[in-house]
Amino acid sequence: MDAVEAANSGHPGMPMGMADVATVLFQQYLKFDPADPKWADRDRFVLSAGHGSMLIYSLLHLTGYAQPTIEDIKAFRQIGSPCAGHPENFELPGVECTTGPLGQGLAMAVGMAIAERHLNAEFGDSLVDHRTWAIAGDGCLMEGINHEAIGLAGHLKLGRLIVLWDDNDITIDGKVSLSSSEDVPARYRATGWHVVECDGHDPASIAAAIDAAIADERPSLVRCKTIIGKGAPNVQGTSKTHGSPLGAAEVAAARETLGWNWPPFEVPADIRAAWLEAGRRGAGLHGEWEARLAADPRRHEFLERTMTVASLAAPALEGFIAKLAAEPQKVATRKASEMALEPLTAAIPHLIGGSADLTGSNNTKTKATGPLTAENYGGRYLYYGIREFGMAAAMNGMALHGGVVPYGGTFLVFSDYCRNAVRLSALQRVGVVYVFTHDSIGLGEDGPTHQPVEHLTSLRLIPNLHVFRPADTIETAECWALALESTDAPSVLALSRQNLPQLRGAGDENWSASSNRSAKGAYRLRAAQGDRKVVLIATGSEVAIAVAVADALAAQGVGADVVSMPCWSLFDAQPAAYRSDLLPADALKVSIEAGTTLGWERYTGLDGLNFGIDRFGASGPGDALYEYFGLTAGAITPQIIAKL
Amino acid sequence: MDAVEAANSGHPGMPMGMADVATVLFQQYLKFDPADPKWADRDRFVLSAGHGSMLIYSLLHLTGYAQPTIEDIKAFRQIGSPCAGHPENFELPGVECTTGPLGQGLAMAVGMAIAERHLNAEFGDSLVDHRTWAIAGDGCLMEGINHEAIGLAGHLKLGRLIVLWDDNDITIDGKVSLSSSEDVPARYRATGWHVVECDGHDPASIAAAIDAAIADERPSLVRCKTIIGKGAPNVQGTSKTHGSPLGAAEVAAARETLGWNWPPFEVPADIRAAWLEAGRRGAGLHGEWEARLAADPRRHEFLERTMTVASLAAPALEGFIAKLAAEPQKVATRKASEMALEPLTAAIPHLIGGSADLTGSNNTKTKATGPLTAENYGGRYLYYGIREFGMAAAMNGMALHGGVVPYGGTFLVFSDYCRNAVRLSALQRVGVVYVFTHDSIGLGEDGPTHQPVEHLTSLRLIPNLHVFRPADTIETAECWALALESTDAPSVLALSRQNLPQLRGAGDENWSASSNRSAKGAYRLRAAQGDRKVVLIATGSEVAIAVAVADALAAQGVGADVVSMPCWSLFDAQPAAYRSDLLPADALKVSIEAGTTLGWERYTGLDGLNFGIDRFGASGPGDALYEYFGLTAGAITPQIIAKL
Repeated sequence: MDAVEAANSGHPGMPMGMADVATVLFQQYLKFDPADPKWADRDRFVLSAGHGSMLIYSLLHLTGYAQPTIEDIKAFRQIGSPCAGHPENFELPGVECTTGPLGQGLAMAVGMAIAERHLNAEFGDSLVDHRTWAIAGDGCLMEGINHEAIGLAGHLKLGRLIVLWDDNDITIDGKVSLSSSEDVPARYRATGWHVVECDGHDPASIAAAIDAAIADERPSLVRCKTIIGKGAPNVQGTSKTHGSPLGAAEVAAARETLGWNWPPFEVPADIRAAWLEAGRRGAGLHGEWEARLAADPRRHEFLERTMTVASLAAPALEGFIAKLAAEPQKVATRKASEMALEPLTAAIPHLIGGSADLTGSNNTKTKATGPLTAENYGGRYLYYGIREFGMAAAMNGMALHGGVVPYGGTFLVFSDYCRNAVRLSALQRVGVVYVFTHDSIGLGEDGPTHQPVEHLTSLRLIPNLHVFRPADTIETAECWALALESTDAPSVLALSRQNLPQLRGAGDENWSASSNRSAKGAYRLRAAQGDRKVVLIATGSEVAIAVAVADALAAQGVGADVVSMPCWSLFDAQPAAYRSDLLPADALKVSIEAGTTLGWERYTGLDGLNFGIDRFGASGPGDALYEYFGLTAGAITPQIIAKL
Repeated sequence: MDAVEAANSGHPGMPMGMADVATVLFQQYLKFDPADPKWADRDRFVLSAGHGSMLIYSLLHLTGYAQPTIEDIKAFRQIGSPCAGHPENFELPGVECTTGPLGQGLAMAVGMAIAERHLNAEFGDSLVDHRTWAIAGDGCLMEGINHEAIGLAGHLKLGRLIVLWDDNDITIDGKVSLSSSEDVPARYRATGWHVVECDGHDPASIAAAIDAAIADERPSLVRCKTIIGKGAPNVQGTSKTHGSPLGAAEVAAARETLGWNWPPFEVPADIRAAWLEAGRRGAGLHGEWEARLAADPRRHEFLERTMTVASLAAPALEGFIAKLAAEPQKVATRKASEMALEPLTAAIPHLIGGSADLTGSNNTKTKATGPLTAENYGGRYLYYGIREFGMAAAMNGMALHGGVVPYGGTFLVFSDYCRNAVRLSALQRVGVVYVFTHDSIGLGEDGPTHQPVEHLTSLRLIPNLHVFRPADTIETAECWALALESTDAPSVLALSRQNLPQLRGAGDENWSASSNRSAKGAYRLRAAQGDRKVVLIATGSEVAIAVAVADALAAQGVGADVVSMPCWSLFDAQPAAYRSDLLPADALKVSIEAGTTLGWERYTGLDGLNFGIDRFGASGPGDALYEYFGLTAGAITPQIIAKL
């Protein structure tokens, strides 16, 4: 309450209401070692109700983590303090994931619990044997993603996942009963969970409930009956304590009520000592674990799994790309992705695939990736069900856990369903790979509800996210390599449903199997025949159209380069000289992409031409739709001539 | 199966599996009149499992709707046919809403059921007394939005909502058991629903279950045990029938199995006659209803409610704007929105407000809008709970039902959670209004998880959606008027948390209370003092910064216009002369917006300057963040001078 007061901003209610539960958890149950926040076999703790950030900052400080210091806490919610408004994994090593967007913390915890069981199946109890804990509030439970997350956890029987529900009857607007009449325990039981209740202010009751949760084989929901803002005598139990400082008078009254006679930010020596001792509980277990690891013949293998996959991707694809160069393939890029995934999943055991019930359409399953199920956690393919948001958040949790690198598929248009989890991948700096297929009107008959038009650029807008839209088999392999080499930023692979010609190969003058031309984000696929008057820029399935336009222009004596631009963010990061060489000031620049044109002006300027689709799609065969929307060489070429 | 075969594309499994259920519903229960698809008191039928579109096309055709014709059905999934891949409300009058994105149809049905009870509370049983029916599959039930939708329906005790669950054990990837172990009926019961089961291929069993559903006061889930693709002897009951044509051989075998001896698209006279008779069932009820309406003293009021609100908005705001002009207010635009909503909700009974548990932050509640609850459906404010996606879909359903115009709030960053429903508002052409507050880093301490940066432009990318970002109290009122006048396109109001100065008023030379300057999307707020070298373009909270920059430039002898651009889409629709007058070729064009810069090149060109935030935000006080990210007159002005 003092940190919130000092910041004049924040959420005191949840930290005060869940302090008793968190104390029991951190002092008696949680397996952790503040001296090594990244110990691989630590329990994972997720504060899904991220607005209660002062709770975790307090716990990390008291148990002896190097960070946050008391000075950090005094600077709560100020620029430069690692104690941000909501907990951020990139600010504090003790924070496992970034929370605040409701429901996603719990869903990431599900992913962590999956990763734990998977690695346990591979390396055994002696190296991997930990639990995942989450504290969640009513918001986390009411969000739709909760249904997806607990459905997945129940189905996979993730018994080492324990959610502590801060059942305080309060939401921001008032009582929970204002908006919900749900029997939460019954709902959890209906999805395969064990539910146990406790008095969230009685340590013995809390411990008994946690013991029961540990003993049960199912994932557990521990219903902790609590009073929000407990200790603030005039406002506790009301939404007034949720999201704003208590105020000086109420803070003073709370000190009185709680019998806390110390000034702000002062922790009495005996209390500090007791907390530090609790923080040292794990040191012995950690030491024993290190000894087991040192003696384990699979030590190097285990350590490699906690390291980057970056160096493994390109070599795994070399043979595949060389073969493509010799024998060009006309396939959909979703199929090219599957072909690239075969050698990748065979060579890289980290990779865990999956799809939100579109396996055969996303082409995400390979021979090396058998099903990961409750009966076989050692599998490497997850049938996520029709749960896009739950899948994306679980992948974030898996990546944050470490030891695995998840990729998962759905249709590009349904990136909308998991968009905030994609954003959290980017914010949390994890190398998750999204396989988004059916990436334009080219998918055809399913029509406008299924045809992305704004999605490519709307994803490009997300900071620290690489959006790849490869044009053919070889670019698809290149983009897969780049995606896996990007370990601190997530990637989207936008892939076609329809077949596309292979545009590169051994016949090219620039051909080299070992140089990844997609790595600069854009490159000159074809140089103009004769005087260059035009530069055509395209991505994915429209690169072949650009090549046809260039041919048509050449037939009329107009020289046009074709630039393939599979990744805007990588291109934007190139030196100015490279960018202006590709997109020179004196050429008419023309973009072709089967999506909204907004944004393309960055490359084509106010005098360029942008061919795209600034309306919703339509239902019809893919080829017919390209005609209908004027995305053909026949429709585009005369407009360029006219412009010239 | 024949239409899917002709299209060589589509989903035969669901229409064949649910044909028996749909027959009972349409022949015995559904209240409708094909002669008047828009009869206000008709039952609403939603095919939430939209991929089964051939089911509803068949039903509409057989029961005698003017559309689709048999020729339309023969052209299933072809450009120009109203029989699109998924059902579209803008193609066929008998289709209540556009479905396909899973889960949203059922959630829209919840909104329709809310609208029905609300209008019933106002106009009574004699004018408003109908049911809402939805057919949903396992996908609709597994999606997260299902949890939000049924939680809302259960809480509001929407007993006139009946969901027919196509329980066929199959998803695209295979058996439901591949990804789910859920006890669906138990989950529905846990959220306040009545559940009844039937054999989905036994008409008597189906009718008995529907009778039980009608008799129960709670919303009902009717579990219909069905066989997907029933009748196709070799593939029924498997995912093979779900999403692709059966093939000529299997179609022939199905004809044999079903004893259907007619060629494709031929309906025998006796069967057609029976269906047409079923279609005429509602004509009598419709006639009686029309007679009651004609005799009702509130007839005009009722009819007005089914008409546009467009003409009511501007007059309702006139006095408010005049008062602001005389007494400028420095308030947050979210507060300005609340102030505008007071006269709007007082004058326009159509308006139904709400928020996803952020009422006090979104400022969406007014004096005129008391709570709409299970005990008082006549209320006009919905506490949606922490259910952004469910809220947005419910609003779509309410708008599609007609008679009400919904608006609802959450934080702008959480537009991600409901993004595909916003897209469906736009695709379905409904005038829903989204109140998205806390629209930039200006929200301050909550940090990057809560600070939108990419969201403004990512929403601008959605076709047929107006994104408004007003700069002050007067623009906020203007944008509200424009949003309500836009009855065939939804609107987003992006509103600040922080206070903003009022920039217009009676002191202006251009002042007029009756001309809505925001209507052109952008306008010259301030003309350059002296020679214009620069045009500053800004939106929302950054317009005041642009004014300060103009002042700083003027002090250095550099003339700069300030253009306020509250709505890109409206500006883009202006004549070229207006656009080039505002943004002349010979001026340095500079954009200032606290969001990602991508897209601004459309207005500033390759030689302009774009000030924004191309990374995630940070936690700190709002003013400090504007300093930190360089969005101040002090930071911007010298960069403009340098560029000049």
